[in-house]
Amino acid sequence: MFEQITLIGIGLIGSSISLAAQKKGLARTIVGHTKSKESTKLALELGLADKMAPTTEEAVKGADLVILCTPVGAFEAIAKQIGPHLKPNSTITDVGSVKGYVIEKVAKYIPDDVHFIPSHPLAGTELSGPASGFAELFENRWCLMTPLDETDPAKISELGDFWQALGSKVEIMDPDHHDTVLAVTSHVPHLIAYTMVGTADHLHRIRNSEVIQYSAAGFRDFTRIAASDPTMWRDVFLTNRESTLDILGRFTEELFALQRLIRTGNGQELFDYFQRTRSIRQGIIEAGQDTASPDFGRAKNTKN
Amino acid sequence: MFEQITLIGIGLIGSSISLAAQKKGLARTIVGHTKSKESTKLALELGLADKMAPTTEEAVKGADLVILCTPVGAFEAIAKQIGPHLKPNSTITDVGSVKGYVIEKVAKYIPDDVHFIPSHPLAGTELSGPASGFAELFENRWCLMTPLDETDPAKISELGDFWQALGSKVEIMDPDHHDTVLAVTSHVPHLIAYTMVGTADHLHRIRNSEVIQYSAAGFRDFTRIAASDPTMWRDVFLTNRESTLDILGRFTEELFALQRLIRTGNGQELFDYFQRTRSIRQGIIEAGQDTASPDFGRAKNTKN
Repeated sequence: MFEQITLIGIGLIGSSISLAAQKKGLARTIVGHTKSKESTKLALELGLADKMAPTTEEAVKGADLVILCTPVGAFEAIAKQIGPHLKPNSTITDVGSVKGYVIEKVAKYIPDDVHFIPSHPLAGTELSGPASGFAELFENRWCLMTPLDETDPAKISELGDFWQALGSKVEIMDPDHHDTVLAVTSHVPHLIAYTMVGTADHLHRIRNSEVIQYSAAGFRDFTRIAASDPTMWRDVFLTNRESTLDILGRFTEELFALQRLIRTGNGQELFDYFQRTRSIRQGIIEAGQDTASPDFGRAKNTKN
Repeated sequence: MFEQITLIGIGLIGSSISLAAQKKGLARTIVGHTKSKESTKLALELGLADKMAPTTEEAVKGADLVILCTPVGAFEAIAKQIGPHLKPNSTITDVGSVKGYVIEKVAKYIPDDVHFIPSHPLAGTELSGPASGFAELFENRWCLMTPLDETDPAKISELGDFWQALGSKVEIMDPDHHDTVLAVTSHVPHLIAYTMVGTADHLHRIRNSEVIQYSAAGFRDFTRIAASDPTMWRDVFLTNRESTLDILGRFTEELFALQRLIRTGNGQELFDYFQRTRSIRQGIIEAGQDTASPDFGRAKNTKN
């Protein structure tokens, strides 16, 4: 599909793109770049790139497709560096979890003869770094693209084909709507998980060893999300601030309403609430977005 | 170990106890009881009991071990019914998620010559009903026992052996401490998951189909917990009210602090916070209380 793909940043997402692109034969050459010397060495050892370039400018030279795979907070500086070195008629995309901010900070540095098409593959795990990637990461996951109005439809379609070739399902979305949807399905859930784990950590009445030992009663599910990459998530909250705070306000309002039902002993309304939330799980399973196996399939179960 | 075990309630936990006890040969006879005609029929079809008794009084007749496996809210009425029919020198226990309330409501109906030893196996899935049980549910999970001061240590030890024979690790705990620890590791996490899912459901700006499709970015993890049995969880919150509201207050305080860091753009403190929570996940994996596989092992990964 492409003569040369350049990956700026080679963590979980960058390394997974490389492995999947190699498996599917989507690029003749893959060039990578990362600031970290350790990750550069590891990326070469793991065969994630044909070449690791020492600078972003060198990395993008000759690339038909450039993909920004660093935390979002680094995008502006990188765009400024690489803008003048991008190949005419090439495509540049990213994998950032916020889109309004990215468009605001990146678009202005991209020359008119280069196609900037923001993307967001909804895929990941709680691990990070070049060794955490795997070729199947994008399979059956959505990739949301938020192109600008003036972008050539043929180029949008070409990039969509690339994401599909990696295993993704592709949807086009307005950037602002994207940022609200993701605040609900990702950003606020992560913040709440971080908060729950932090609350447990700060409670001196209960030993940390107790929290850990007895975590299987529900708490452990939150710790997976709260183990996600700290730099990435710091950047997400700082760059999708408005939507995050907006949805957080709704969450808190709802939490106070449930708190009041508990305080006043309103069992019927609690029951009705818990009944409704149960059906959403069923919808997710039917949409193929989670396993139907109890306990995410963690339980060793002779019935499975 | 026992001539006759009687299970009052035959949902996820009751059915799993039956299957595990049968597998390990811990009872000559298992008698069950449930109010539901449908569950009575299903329990017999699934071989969960040698006999399903039509009343609680009949069910406990001759039992050496009675286990209350209904939602906690039903315990008081059941204890009142069965108290006079319990066999002298037999043991009665329960599987309720709260312990202070259970002791307050049940102990007064138990005759002096019967040993009441409250238990709480920290095991379960998001499914419920007689068909959801499996023999391995208790393996490598903790069971917390909160015996009263006057209880015969030999009887406590006997019940501990029973839980261990089912695969559990056993710990003795003070009932009040239990209720605080569980508020942190289970009750508040469940309430927050219910709230997050409810918040998404109530947001009219975003279609439910979008929430479902794009749930893999974090939200779906919350939906598993928020699919847990509504009756059981209504009862938990109403009967562990004080500890739940107390921990919830700590959670909200913490959430407001993080919200403020986002609003004021304090990236360094956000980063430090997310760094600390990451290490708790590691502790849980090292304690054998969750899988080390990324994404709970859901990702199909050629590296696994």
